[in-house]
Amino acid sequence: MSEHLEEFKAIIADVDDLYKAQSVLNWDQQAYMPPGGAQARASQVATLSRLAHERFTSERVGALLDLLSAETRDLPYEDDTVSMLRVLQREYVKAVRLPAAFVAELAEASGLATTAWAQARAANDWHGFESHLAHMLELKQREAEYLGYSDRMYDALLDEYEPGMKTAQVTEIFDAVRRELVPLVQTIRAHSDRVEDAAVLRHYDPDKQWALAHEALRAIGYDFERGRMDRVPHPFCTTFSNHDVRVTNRILPDFFNSCLFGALHEGGHALYEQGSPDKFERTALAGGASLGVHESQSRLWENLVGRSRAFWEFFFPKFKRTFRKNAADLDAEKMYRAVNKVQPSLIRVEADEVTYSLHVMLRFEAENLLLENKLRVAELPAWWDEAMSSYLGITPPDVAQGVLQDVHWSMGLYGYFPTYSLGTFFSAQLFEQARKELGNLDAQFAQGEFEPLRQWLQQKIYQHGRKFTLNELANQITGEPLQTRSYIAYLKNKYAEIYGL
Amino acid sequence: MSEHLEEFKAIIADVDDLYKAQSVLNWDQQAYMPPGGAQARASQVATLSRLAHERFTSERVGALLDLLSAETRDLPYEDDTVSMLRVLQREYVKAVRLPAAFVAELAEASGLATTAWAQARAANDWHGFESHLAHMLELKQREAEYLGYSDRMYDALLDEYEPGMKTAQVTEIFDAVRRELVPLVQTIRAHSDRVEDAAVLRHYDPDKQWALAHEALRAIGYDFERGRMDRVPHPFCTTFSNHDVRVTNRILPDFFNSCLFGALHEGGHALYEQGSPDKFERTALAGGASLGVHESQSRLWENLVGRSRAFWEFFFPKFKRTFRKNAADLDAEKMYRAVNKVQPSLIRVEADEVTYSLHVMLRFEAENLLLENKLRVAELPAWWDEAMSSYLGITPPDVAQGVLQDVHWSMGLYGYFPTYSLGTFFSAQLFEQARKELGNLDAQFAQGEFEPLRQWLQQKIYQHGRKFTLNELANQITGEPLQTRSYIAYLKNKYAEIYGL
Repeated sequence: MSEHLEEFKAIIADVDDLYKAQSVLNWDQQAYMPPGGAQARASQVATLSRLAHERFTSERVGALLDLLSAETRDLPYEDDTVSMLRVLQREYVKAVRLPAAFVAELAEASGLATTAWAQARAANDWHGFESHLAHMLELKQREAEYLGYSDRMYDALLDEYEPGMKTAQVTEIFDAVRRELVPLVQTIRAHSDRVEDAAVLRHYDPDKQWALAHEALRAIGYDFERGRMDRVPHPFCTTFSNHDVRVTNRILPDFFNSCLFGALHEGGHALYEQGSPDKFERTALAGGASLGVHESQSRLWENLVGRSRAFWEFFFPKFKRTFRKNAADLDAEKMYRAVNKVQPSLIRVEADEVTYSLHVMLRFEAENLLLENKLRVAELPAWWDEAMSSYLGITPPDVAQGVLQDVHWSMGLYGYFPTYSLGTFFSAQLFEQARKELGNLDAQFAQGEFEPLRQWLQQKIYQHGRKFTLNELANQITGEPLQTRSYIAYLKNKYAEIYGL
Repeated sequence: MSEHLEEFKAIIADVDDLYKAQSVLNWDQQAYMPPGGAQARASQVATLSRLAHERFTSERVGALLDLLSAETRDLPYEDDTVSMLRVLQREYVKAVRLPAAFVAELAEASGLATTAWAQARAANDWHGFESHLAHMLELKQREAEYLGYSDRMYDALLDEYEPGMKTAQVTEIFDAVRRELVPLVQTIRAHSDRVEDAAVLRHYDPDKQWALAHEALRAIGYDFERGRMDRVPHPFCTTFSNHDVRVTNRILPDFFNSCLFGALHEGGHALYEQGSPDKFERTALAGGASLGVHESQSRLWENLVGRSRAFWEFFFPKFKRTFRKNAADLDAEKMYRAVNKVQPSLIRVEADEVTYSLHVMLRFEAENLLLENKLRVAELPAWWDEAMSSYLGITPPDVAQGVLQDVHWSMGLYGYFPTYSLGTFFSAQLFEQARKELGNLDAQFAQGEFEPLRQWLQQKIYQHGRKFTLNELANQITGEPLQTRSYIAYLKNKYAEIYGL
C-alpha cells in the first residue's frame, strides 16, 4: 500500500468510526433513551457529525484524492481502491460545494421544521407548517444550485440518495408504471370483496408476535450473533459494522402485518449489511450501494418472499403453533390471501404492494413542481387531495392524513421518496433473474430453504458493497438497466390470481 | 464572556461530547451489543478517545489556559470559570506529560493484559498473567515518572483518581482503620452464629427482584425520566448528560443482596450525576468530584441507608408484597439482620461492610510494594495469601479466588483501589453530619422519606460538580478533612448491637 493510500485510509477510517458512533447514538435514542436525554444527545450527534464532516472535507483529503487517482489510473473500474476513490470523490465534490454556513443554516432550519411538522401534524394544522416548508424548499433550491445540475434541478438532490440516477429516467419509469397501476387498482377495487383480511385484524399477543418475528428473521438467515432486534416507534435498520447490524421493529397488537413484515423488511436491509465483506470495513465501500438498491433488498424479503404463497406454506405451521387459539380457524391459504389484501389507503407507510408506488409518484411530482416553482407551497394541500383522488380514488379527510403525513420534507429529504419505488421495481427485476438461475424458488421457500436465494444475493449484490450504482448492478446481474416490466408482470400475475380477474 | 473563553468552552464542549459518545458505546457494549460487534466497537471507541485526546492536548488549549488564567486571576477560588480552569489545568498538565507513543503502548499492553488476565483467571493459572503484570507494572512506573511526584511514586497514580490525595494520608488513614477493624472482625467471627442469613440465600424470582429494584430506586429519588436500568454482567453507572444517567445491574436468582443493593449502590452514583447542575453541562465541571467522593455516594445509599433498620421498616412491606410465598416466614428485623451478616470472604466485591476495607488495604500495600520494587511480581501470590490470612484469617484455595480476582491491574488501574475505601469512610463522615443537621433520619427512612437526605446531599455535594476535592468538600461540610472516626464508630455501634457484643 502506498504511503498516500495509507494516510488516506486512516482518515477515512476515522470518519467512518465517527459516523458509526453517531449511528449507535441514534439507535439508542430511538430504542432506549429516556425522555430527558434528548437535548444533550442532539449536541453529541451534531458534534460527531461536524467533526466527521470537517475531517472529510479537509484540503488534505482533496489533495490525496488527486494523488491517488493519478497513482491508480491504470487499474480497472471494479478494483477495490479505484472504486473507493470513485465513491469518495463523488462525495467529496458534493461536500465541499456546500458552504459550512449553509450546512449549519440547513441543519438549524431542519430542526425547527421537524418540530413544527410534528406539532402541525398532531394539531392537523397546515398553517403551522406552511412557512417552514416554504423555507426548507428555498434552502433545498439553494442546495441544488450549490451542487449543480445540467438538466433538472431535482437531479442534484436525487443524486444524493441514488447516485447516477436522473430525473428523466425516474419520470419515464414512473409514467410507464402509472399507466399500468391505475387501471389495475381500479379493477381490484371493483372486486375488493373477493379478499378477506379479518385474519390479520384480530388480536395477537405482542410477546408472541415478537417471538415469531425472531423466527422469521432466523429463517431468512439473519445472524443474531451479529445483530439483534429492539422495539422502537418507527422501525429501521442500522449498521455499526458488518458484524453488528441491528434491526428495530414495532408491534401492533390488533394488526398482525406490522410486526412480521416489519421484521422481514428490516431483515432484508440487514442481510445486505451483514453480507458486506470484511475487507470493506472502515472504508467508504462498506454497506449498500444506494437507497434504491437497499430498498430492493428489504422489499424482496418482505414482499416477494414474505407475501408469497410458498412462504406461507412453510411459515403457517409456526404461526399456528404460536397462536394456537387465535389461529384455529385459519390455514396457509387464508393467511396468504389476508396479507395480500389490496386497499387504496391514505397513508403511504401502510399501503399494500399494489398501491404503494402511487403514493411515491405523487410525492415525486409534487417535489419537482415545488422545486421548479410550478406549484406554490400554499397550493400544495389542494393539489395533494386532487392527486390522491385521481391516483387512488380517495380524498384525505384532513391534512394530517394527507399532505402532512411524512416527516421527509421537514428534514430536508427531497429526492428521497423515489428510491422507495425504484427499489421496489428493482426487487422484481432481481427476483425474476433469481428464478431463472436458482430453479424452483417456490419449492425451496415451501421447505424453508432461503439460503440459496440469500447466497445468490450475496454473490450478485452484497459482496460489492457500495462499489456500483443501481443501474450498474442491474446491468451486471440482468443484462439491462433498471426496468419495470418484471414488476408489472409480477403484480398482474399475482393479483389476477388472488382476485380472480 | 470573553472571546478566549468562548473559544475555549467550544473546544471543551467538543471533547465532552466525544467522551460522552464513548460512554454510550461502552454502555451498549455491556448491555446490548451482540458478540460480533466487539472488534469494530473497539476501534470506534479508540478513535473517539484519540480524537478527544488530540483536541484536548492541542497547543491552543495550553495557550488558552494561560490566557484565561491571567484574565480570571482576580476571581475567587470557587468561581465557576476559575474552577473549570483549575480542573482542566490539572488534567492538561498530566495529559501533555505523557508522550503519544507511550499512551499507545500502554493502551495496547493493557488490551493484551486484560485478555491474558481473563484467560488466566478462568484457567486458575498465575503464570499466564505473571509476565503481563510485570510489563504493566513497568509501564505504570514509567507513567509515574512522566507525571512526576515528590514523595511517593504512588502519589502520581493516585492523583488521577483522587485529585490532591497523597499516599501518606491514605497510609495514615488505613493504619488507623486497620487497627480497629482486624480485632472487630475477629470478635464477630467468634460470634458468627448469632446472625442468620438464610433469608437472602433462597430463590427469588428474577423478574420480581428487578421490579423491586426499580421500586427502591424510585424511593430514593432516582428519576427514571432521566435514566433507566438495564441488565449487564458487572453493574455500573454511566452518564450521557445530567438528564440521562443510566444505572446497570444484575440479578442472582439465589442471592437476594446482589440486585437490590446493586441498584442502591449504582443509584447512589446516579443521584450524584443527576444532581449535577445544568450550567456545568459540556464543561469540565459536570459530574462527580473524584472516584472517592463518588463512592461515598454509592456506599451511603447502599449501606448507611439500604442496610439500616429504618430502611427495612419502610421497605419490608414492599418486599413481602413482591415475594408473597418466599417471604412468609420473614419480618423486617430478620431481613435487617440477614443483609448485615459479616463473614470474612475471599472475594472483594462480595465482601460485607466490615471486611470490605481490609481487602482494599491489602491491594494498596501490594501496589506500593510492587511500584517501589520492594516486592517482586513472582513473590506476589505468596505475599497475597499471607496478607489474607493475617487480615481476614482465611487463605485462598487458588489464585483465581486470590491474586487474580480483580481486573484492575491488567487494565493499568493502579492507585484506583484506595478510592473505594476513602469513599466508604467519607460516607460515614457525611452521614454523621447529615444526622446532626436533618433531625431524626431513622424516623424519616422508616416513613420512606429520603428526600430530605437527597436534598441535603444536593446542597452539600451534588451542586458543586467537580469543583472541589474530597478533602475540600469534607472541610466545607464537616469542618475537618477526611477522617475515619465516624466510620469506626458507625461500624462498632451497628455491629455490636447486631451481634450482641
